[in-house]
Amino acid sequence: MPSTSSTTPPRPLTLTLLAYDGVELLDLTGPCEVFTTASRVAARPDGAQLPGAALAAGWQVRTVSRDGAAVRSRAGLRVLPDGGFGDARAALAPPTTPTDILLIPGGVTDAAEACPATRAWLLRQAPAARVLAAVCTGSFILAAAGLLQGPRRVTTHPEDLAPMRARWPQLQVLDGPRWVVDDRLWTSAGISAGIDLSLALVAHLASPALAERTARQMDYRWISQPD
Amino acid sequence: MPSTSSTTPPRPLTLTLLAYDGVELLDLTGPCEVFTTASRVAARPDGAQLPGAALAAGWQVRTVSRDGAAVRSRAGLRVLPDGGFGDARAALAPPTTPTDILLIPGGVTDAAEACPATRAWLLRQAPAARVLAAVCTGSFILAAAGLLQGPRRVTTHPEDLAPMRARWPQLQVLDGPRWVVDDRLWTSAGISAGIDLSLALVAHLASPALAERTARQMDYRWISQPD
Repeated sequence: MPSTSSTTPPRPLTLTLLAYDGVELLDLTGPCEVFTTASRVAARPDGAQLPGAALAAGWQVRTVSRDGAAVRSRAGLRVLPDGGFGDARAALAPPTTPTDILLIPGGVTDAAEACPATRAWLLRQAPAARVLAAVCTGSFILAAAGLLQGPRRVTTHPEDLAPMRARWPQLQVLDGPRWVVDDRLWTSAGISAGIDLSLALVAHLASPALAERTARQMDYRWISQPD
Repeated sequence: MPSTSSTTPPRPLTLTLLAYDGVELLDLTGPCEVFTTASRVAARPDGAQLPGAALAAGWQVRTVSRDGAAVRSRAGLRVLPDGGFGDARAALAPPTTPTDILLIPGGVTDAAEACPATRAWLLRQAPAARVLAAVCTGSFILAAAGLLQGPRRVTTHPEDLAPMRARWPQLQVLDGPRWVVDDRLWTSAGISAGIDLSLALVAHLASPALAERTARQMDYRWISQPD
């Protein structure tokens, strides 16, 4: 039996997005649109031949909130997640399956940063995740949970660079790149930059060709270079 | 008493977004993010001096579905609207107040096109609307309701140009522009083009300066020219 590539997981990748009251709507829905569109395109006849398409077609994208109830985004629109932290409904895959890609959107993060259940959930989920990603001020939630130790290279929304440097002086907070990759940590600039980061993740997890095809399906002019 | 500009409405503008099962998530949430961010920026000290900011700060953005219940987007994520077609909860403004801007997102539109309640609601709402806007295949829902009579100039998702021409041969379906304005009818290309159309609407309804400030707040590289 031929060996499979070392990047081929033995089960479908699980991509988990955190929803919370005050979440910036597009920080959450931009990545959700990217990952689900990539998976849909990969399953189509005109996408199935692209490198990585067989993997992407199986991606399981789920949104979770603390208690599985609806959250009110900063825009006012409410979103109903697939489940809560401790809820079997939260998992398209069994709840014992760790998440592979954990993405934290930004927004008004004070309550989420201070929430013990959110911190505990992040500390349970993060160790096994292949990728920890944060859009905009989602990185504040990761940092508040203690997940950004050491001189990690990160970025965030332009208005939040200074507060981030003040609160976590150990971080190398970069001003300029649309997104920053530091080992398994992926962080992006503000709001819509989460779409570009997510397309870059599609390129990383499946292939650049699938990312480009996904951007075209979304009629999105992908900024495919972070700097 | 000085006369006000003819573009100044006597009450806050109401922007109504339609949600339905199968709606493309970003078609709905992109415009919602743009309009609410513009309104929020306009109310901030650094935005209040921009032309049109006083108007935009009062915008009422609401999402409605047929029965006010949650809808499942094509991406899987469920969205809870502010109310239903006949529901007082639907209206941030009183339900007798007509919508000023009616925006129809695209997606898997077959059921929405065929829904008598949706058609009837569109026919009630559309006559008084200052702007009828559609993202991607949202224009199919408007056309199916009989609201795109005559040789109107429109566009849609690249994959849907040919089906649109076949179904509504009276339309001038344009291939290329990111969005098209024909009198009060605004239509855009696919998915993310709805963000550009919405920013163009902010420029039209408030000012280009507020649209540019909104795009910057969203870290979005606005394509401010449609061609």
